[in-house]
Parts: sequence; structure tokens; C-alpha cells
Amino acid sequence: MTSGRDRRAGETAEDARIVRTRADVARAAFDVLVEEGSEALTHARVAERAGYSKTTLYKHWPARSDLAATALEALRDFQHREPTGDIRADLIGELTTFRQAVLDLRLDRVLSAMAQWATLDTMRQIRTEINGEGQRPIRNILQQAFEGAELEAAISMLSGVVACPSLMFGTVPDDDVIEAAVDIVLHHAGRAGNPRSV
Amino acid sequence: MTSGRDRRAGETAEDARIVRTRADVARAAFDVLVEEGSEALTHARVAERAGYSKTTLYKHWPARSDLAATALEALRDFQHREPTGDIRADLIGELTTFRQAVLDLRLDRVLSAMAQWATLDTMRQIRTEINGEGQRPIRNILQQAFEGAELEAAISMLSGVVACPSLMFGTVPDDDVIEAAVDIVLHHAGRAGNPRSV
Repeated sequence: MTSGRDRRAGETAEDARIVRTRADVARAAFDVLVEEGSEALTHARVAERAGYSKTTLYKHWPARSDLAATALEALRDFQHREPTGDIRADLIGELTTFRQAVLDLRLDRVLSAMAQWATLDTMRQIRTEINGEGQRPIRNILQQAFEGAELEAAISMLSGVVACPSLMFGTVPDDDVIEAAVDIVLHHAGRAGNPRSV
Repeated sequence: MTSGRDRRAGETAEDARIVRTRADVARAAFDVLVEEGSEALTHARVAERAGYSKTTLYKHWPARSDLAATALEALRDFQHREPTGDIRADLIGELTTFRQAVLDLRLDRVLSAMAQWATLDTMRQIRTEINGEGQRPIRNILQQAFEGAELEAAISMLSGVVACPSLMFGTVPDDDVIEAAVDIVLHHAGRAGNPRSV
């Protein structure tokens, strides 16, 4: 995030310093969230891990929800796959990517930490936005085959194939389980009489 | 839990006091977990909420994992429905009961709090046991129609219909979404050539 690609013509040393500070704090906030949990995400703790003063943190991120938002910026950079138009392959690809994010980014711990923010309005808004963005690729693919209650069910069902084992048992599904889930959903989409049959 | 039903012949006043203490502490530990989160589940905080001394708590529940186990006893008492043998009705019934537990017991907050215990061995064992028990009725019903990877996929998918909206967005699914999910799964089970076709 501090690489040359972020530099623009005319950027000053001051700008570069701010970019670096933001990247350091975002990283420290993410690490605190994943490794120490939701409650630990305070200005004091993030300042300590990032190696900046609390004054600096309060200046740029006045509220705890600002720290939460910056912690989750790492997730926004997460690369979804380009859809190929093959619904089965695209769904399997998205779920495989989701599984990899659980392993690499500890997305299960991010999800569970965010779930504990329900009592705070600003935090809840961030959660809804982040999770909505995270589900969007699966929603877009499934919209080709489903609508209404079936669409909502299918989105939660496919999210659940990765989310439930990781949140409930700390495991991730094997390839054959992901494929079985996609086939169960698509078999229904392909049923006789479905106007959006695939 | 302190009602006459728990009394046995020959029970002394001392026994009754212990039963009441256990019920009070279990209740306070559950409330701390749901309302204040995983990190707040300490001997000091539970003692304060239950109105007992820390000494009493350490005597009966020496480790934090003992407090966690007692907090989750409330979930063990949770009544699952008696299966009727009608797979569709039984699955819809289980998911409706799960949804009600999210609303009444804040099961979503319990799940997310437990998800943050991944780093502690004893806590992780308790989580695995509790979540395994919670999924057992759905597993038992689905075993009538699925096996192998399809069974694991179907269990996570149906759990996800309730768990994903509540954990990700703080909402619960409508009846028609639950019914659509069950129909998607059972339509696949009823496909031509399935040896366990329902």
C-alpha cells in the first residue's frame, strides 16, 4: 500500500508520510481486530501496535468506528474473480475465493468480530456495507437464475457453506462440499418450468 | 431451574443453595456473554452480575472455560422439535426454531462470541460440542436423504439460511426464504437416480 503505484505526480514528502501512516494504522487495526477481537479495537491499543501516538490516531480517526472502517479497508482490496459467464464455475470460484480469505485473512474472525458490533449504529452500518459488498459477486451470479425468496435463500445458503463451518467449528469445506452445494442450488434453478432456467 | 422439579427426596437446604447458586451464575455468565461479548466473560465480571463473591466463583468454576461451559448450559436446555417423519415440515420446523433462538436467546451473539474462542483449546472444544449438538437435529433429518459431501453441504446450507443473515446483517429470514431453502435442498434430494430419493 506504500508502493510506488500509489504515488502521483506532484506528491510531496508530507503526502507520502500520510499515506504511510494510513497504511500502518489500517494494518495494525486489522491485526488487532483479528488477533485480539472486537473489544480490543481501541485508539490506545491500535496506537501501540502501529507505533504512533494516540494523538495522531485521534486526529485522523476520531471515533472507534473510524478505526473499524480503516481496519476493514484491507477487505475492500480483496480481489473477486472476473465472472466467465459459466454460472457453475463462477459460483465455485467465488466460494473457493471466500474460503481462501478465511485461511489468509482470517475472515471468520473478522465476521465474528463484526457480528459483535450489533449494538453500535455506526459499526452496524459499516458491517452491513462490508458484508453486502462481500456477497455482491455471489448475488450477481445467482440473479441470473433466481429471484425473490429463492434468490435470498440461495445467497445465504452458498455463503453458509463456507461461513458456517468456519464460524461454528473453525474448519473450511473441502472442494467436493463446495461443488455439491453449487450443484444443489443449480439443480433447483434448472427445474422444469423455471422461467430463468439455466 | 430452582423449581420444585429439581428437588429430590433427602435434599438439604445446602443442596438447594448450591442449585440456586449454579442457576444464578449460569444466567449471569450467559448475560455477560450475550450483552458484553466474549472478552467480558471473566470471574470478576460474572461475580459482579450474579451477586456472588469472586471466591465462590473460583471455587466452583476454576477456569474461564468453566464459566463459558456454564453460560452455554442455557442452550442445552433449548427444546428442539420432535420430528414427525415429514422431512420438509421437520426441516422448516428446525429452521424456524433456530430463527426463534436468534430472536429470544440472541443466539447470533452467542455464535459470534464462541467464534472468537478459536485460540483457546478448551473453549474451542466447548464450541465444537455446543455447535455439533445444535446442528444434530438438522443432520439427523438430512441423513434420510443425503450422504457424504452432499450431506455436509446441505447441513451448512440450511444452517446458513438463518446464521448468515443474523451474523452478517443482524436480520432473520422470512418464512418464505426458509421454505425456499428447504425446497432447494429437497428438490435436489428428489432428483432422478438418487438412491435415497425422498
